[in-house]
Amino acid sequence: MLPKYFQELIRYFSFLPAVGPKMAERLVLYLFKQDKFKVTDFAQALLDFQKKLSFCPRCHYITESGKLCSICSQSKRVENKIICVVEEPLNVMAFEKAGVFSGTYHVLGGSLSVMTPDAIGKLKIDELILRIKKEQIKEVILATNLTSDGETTALYLARMIRPLNVKMTRLARGLPTGGDIEYADSLTLSGALEGRREVK
Amino acid sequence: MLPKYFQELIRYFSFLPAVGPKMAERLVLYLFKQDKFKVTDFAQALLDFQKKLSFCPRCHYITESGKLCSICSQSKRVENKIICVVEEPLNVMAFEKAGVFSGTYHVLGGSLSVMTPDAIGKLKIDELILRIKKEQIKEVILATNLTSDGETTALYLARMIRPLNVKMTRLARGLPTGGDIEYADSLTLSGALEGRREVK
Repeated sequence: MLPKYFQELIRYFSFLPAVGPKMAERLVLYLFKQDKFKVTDFAQALLDFQKKLSFCPRCHYITESGKLCSICSQSKRVENKIICVVEEPLNVMAFEKAGVFSGTYHVLGGSLSVMTPDAIGKLKIDELILRIKKEQIKEVILATNLTSDGETTALYLARMIRPLNVKMTRLARGLPTGGDIEYADSLTLSGALEGRREVK
Repeated sequence: MLPKYFQELIRYFSFLPAVGPKMAERLVLYLFKQDKFKVTDFAQALLDFQKKLSFCPRCHYITESGKLCSICSQSKRVENKIICVVEEPLNVMAFEKAGVFSGTYHVLGGSLSVMTPDAIGKLKIDELILRIKKEQIKEVILATNLTSDGETTALYLARMIRPLNVKMTRLARGLPTGGDIEYADSLTLSGALEGRREVK
């Protein structure tokens, strides 16, 4: 009913996360109404993206092929000898947007889960251990998500890193800024209570 | 902070309707984790789409370059001499999926609005008038949306087509199948009441 090339593009869009077949149709129709050059440029951006990007050989964040990423190439940050271990590149982006961390990151590329213990092999854990030894790291911040998978991952990492005698920390649990105690779940509240600080 | 090619692709995705910057990031990150070939294929699908599709020269639905669309090329449907006038290609897709119409369509490419009367020039209205005359059409179904813009468009079309002495119809207003009277808005209810049919 619809031309092949139209259906084909809908198919590609509906592969994307959170894009259903209905939304894919809308997106493709939107593109169909655009300037032809814009669609070509979009395709070119995809090709460039595919060809020129790779994972940073040190921290596994996103970088231009072969080179160290923009964070690992700042010697000041490397010299701080603090690694913040996160699950995904998006987590690095969140920290960098906040501008609150001045060490380097280590992107695991996912998390462990009780359900899929095979995932261990895919995470960059060996690489992390190697970096801790080689770069004489002083502190490892286990900044995996505060979900059950993230916690499992942090526990596993802690067990692996403990023999190296390096300081390990975990992000504080507590109420988010602007958070309302009334709406906080009990785990968040218990975390906030446990981590309470003295007011001076 | 992020490599140029990554940001560039995020920018293209966030141009799409209903895709915000946050979702664009997620989509691009998803692509980054995919097989490289898949991304190349996606780009190729975009290029093919851009090169090979155009509007049907008769009804302005989507077709492969130069040719009549899959509906206009069925002589049986053309011979029915009924045109269903819709706003967008997606509307044609809805009718075709339902499989309830056996004439041809005419895609206006948008709707008129009291706010943007300049849009008249962009709609395929002259082309519709020409088709009605040339193809000796017997009935024109004004199937624009039942929104205020759609109604404005239908009123305007009716004024333009009236001199041609061709039968004009509008889709029935009423409750949708499965609709609950309790939740129907007053315009829908008044439409359903007005269009009531005798039970025999």
